[in-house]
Amino acid sequence: MRLQVALGERAYEILIGEGMMAVESTWHSMPIGETAMVVTDNHVGPLYADRLRDTLAALGVQTAVHQLAAGEQSKTLASWAAIMDQLAEERHDRTTTLIALGGGVVGDLAGFAAATWLRGVRYLQVPTTLLAQVDSSVGGKTGVNHALGKNLIGAFYQPSGVVADLDTLSTLPTRELVAGLAEVIKYGIIRDAKFFEFIEQQLDALLAGDTEQLGRAVVRACEIKAEVVAADERESGLREILNFGHTFAHALETLTEYAELNHGEAVAIGMVMAAELSVAEGWLAASVRDRIMRLIQRLLVLERLPKGLSIDEMIEAFQSDKKTRAGRLRFVLTRGLGHAETSEAVSQERLRKVLERFL
Amino acid sequence: MRLQVALGERAYEILIGEGMMAVESTWHSMPIGETAMVVTDNHVGPLYADRLRDTLAALGVQTAVHQLAAGEQSKTLASWAAIMDQLAEERHDRTTTLIALGGGVVGDLAGFAAATWLRGVRYLQVPTTLLAQVDSSVGGKTGVNHALGKNLIGAFYQPSGVVADLDTLSTLPTRELVAGLAEVIKYGIIRDAKFFEFIEQQLDALLAGDTEQLGRAVVRACEIKAEVVAADERESGLREILNFGHTFAHALETLTEYAELNHGEAVAIGMVMAAELSVAEGWLAASVRDRIMRLIQRLLVLERLPKGLSIDEMIEAFQSDKKTRAGRLRFVLTRGLGHAETSEAVSQERLRKVLERFL
Repeated sequence: MRLQVALGERAYEILIGEGMMAVESTWHSMPIGETAMVVTDNHVGPLYADRLRDTLAALGVQTAVHQLAAGEQSKTLASWAAIMDQLAEERHDRTTTLIALGGGVVGDLAGFAAATWLRGVRYLQVPTTLLAQVDSSVGGKTGVNHALGKNLIGAFYQPSGVVADLDTLSTLPTRELVAGLAEVIKYGIIRDAKFFEFIEQQLDALLAGDTEQLGRAVVRACEIKAEVVAADERESGLREILNFGHTFAHALETLTEYAELNHGEAVAIGMVMAAELSVAEGWLAASVRDRIMRLIQRLLVLERLPKGLSIDEMIEAFQSDKKTRAGRLRFVLTRGLGHAETSEAVSQERLRKVLERFL
Repeated sequence: MRLQVALGERAYEILIGEGMMAVESTWHSMPIGETAMVVTDNHVGPLYADRLRDTLAALGVQTAVHQLAAGEQSKTLASWAAIMDQLAEERHDRTTTLIALGGGVVGDLAGFAAATWLRGVRYLQVPTTLLAQVDSSVGGKTGVNHALGKNLIGAFYQPSGVVADLDTLSTLPTRELVAGLAEVIKYGIIRDAKFFEFIEQQLDALLAGDTEQLGRAVVRACEIKAEVVAADERESGLREILNFGHTFAHALETLTEYAELNHGEAVAIGMVMAAELSVAEGWLAASVRDRIMRLIQRLLVLERLPKGLSIDEMIEAFQSDKKTRAGRLRFVLTRGLGHAETSEAVSQERLRKVLERFL
């Protein structure tokens, strides 16, 4: 399956399918020079880096590999600087292509490296987790975390192509699959009620790693993301709806120092909170919130909600959120399945009441 | 004087004149939010930061100041990370505006900070050196140096406006003035023979800091730069001609660890080398090279050519130049006053012969 992200001179294709990575024709349609550097981590690299390098070698591409430690704790300026060092030592010039082989952390780091090496070189995303395939690999958000907040440093910088190989999902731990499914559910809530129904019906198959159903989910998720990103590349309007549940999620991740929840789990919990806030604001029927709640409960993530968080520290964390503008809290809320909008009108009082139900 | 850099949705204005910085109307026409951060250095800050902050305060803009040590040795990831830290600590959000108040180092650092804070916020250039006014403040090149080379890390990221206050040139040391004039001469060589003649006629006035003639030089230089940048924002073609003399200059700067020559001085020497190479390649008449040489000699920079450099290390340094592509050396050469082009066909042998005349 081939999708297009319609971004004018920055347009690119997403290829989705089984075994794509090892097929030479995949790379024929991707822009790539004579040299490349694969950025990967120590979980994914041992599984796929050689395969990818061999495929590219057959096409005459000389490929270096940069491997970092797996996990969110690698998403730092130091990891990014280490990529810069290798690029400098190996003298990669403006014709080189970076290839992000891994999950969201690898994609964000490699993308930021591509955005900033020699003022910008090409990069391709080869996402190997469901979360990265349906979310972070598409849209050009790149960057690293700062001690004071997630993704504070980065750039909007579009990849030149995305290769989502469904085979990589077969080696994915359940927690990672669940994290991706949380974002998949998000697309249903914010943009497509029918897709939400599809997930309700197929969740057991998706959780069991059924490749056909996962393929359908990845394709529809990427279609929605591509459409939203094409309409608003730099998140000045529509694109904000992709952050449904994310303001809560970022606060949860920051306060637990990224150690207790992975990003998708935090988003799953955050979406339940956002649905609750939508009801409190009078935007959403309680019955729809319950439907959202029931679906997310099947992911078995709500019990992972960290203990001991205070409402005050949650609100403090919202204040540092990137989406906060001139001190006003911003939340993406839903008006019903398939519809989401940003609200700047949430009162602290109402927010506290909603948080009380969870903390 | 008001110029336009025609870059579509990234278009912006350059305001050039005496005393612009302290005039409120200057800032009415510049996009700026309710909060700003002035990035400056410990030479320029004490002279102008308060004046700028007071002017902005009268317009209701709350302005923080970040001051770094003056000089190329500040153009590092560490200095950039310190700006990120202050932005994080003071919680600057996406509505903030960075203002680069200083020379090229400050402009490149502040621009890169703007490119990478929260994936990109607005910034304005307020260049206070001739070099920055005629070169680095226009065009969106931002970044820092890497231990293995100049400007290896950075981004193309356009400012939202440029304010060139000619009054700031009155406090400029002669070496800084000379550095700027080297780039001014470059515009004549690569794009405008009449402008080259103007500089030949007015060089004494320019060197004496005559504001009227400097104003004319800044305006014409900015016009040429704006025109070239608008035609080729990301340096994939025409824009390369702006690098006339720069491949030599970067090698000289790298090999002397940025300690002996400032950038403009290196460019002045580099242009003489580039003219010599143009003659050796059969592109340029010896008489025109002599005219270029005579003009640059009046800047009294050729005697600053570092001693003890070897041809081998110069060629080694060219190899690491950003403009090198897939190992082929690229030099911008001139075919006569007002005309420059990139050559990929220079042989090492010929290059060695040219370098022998200087080293």
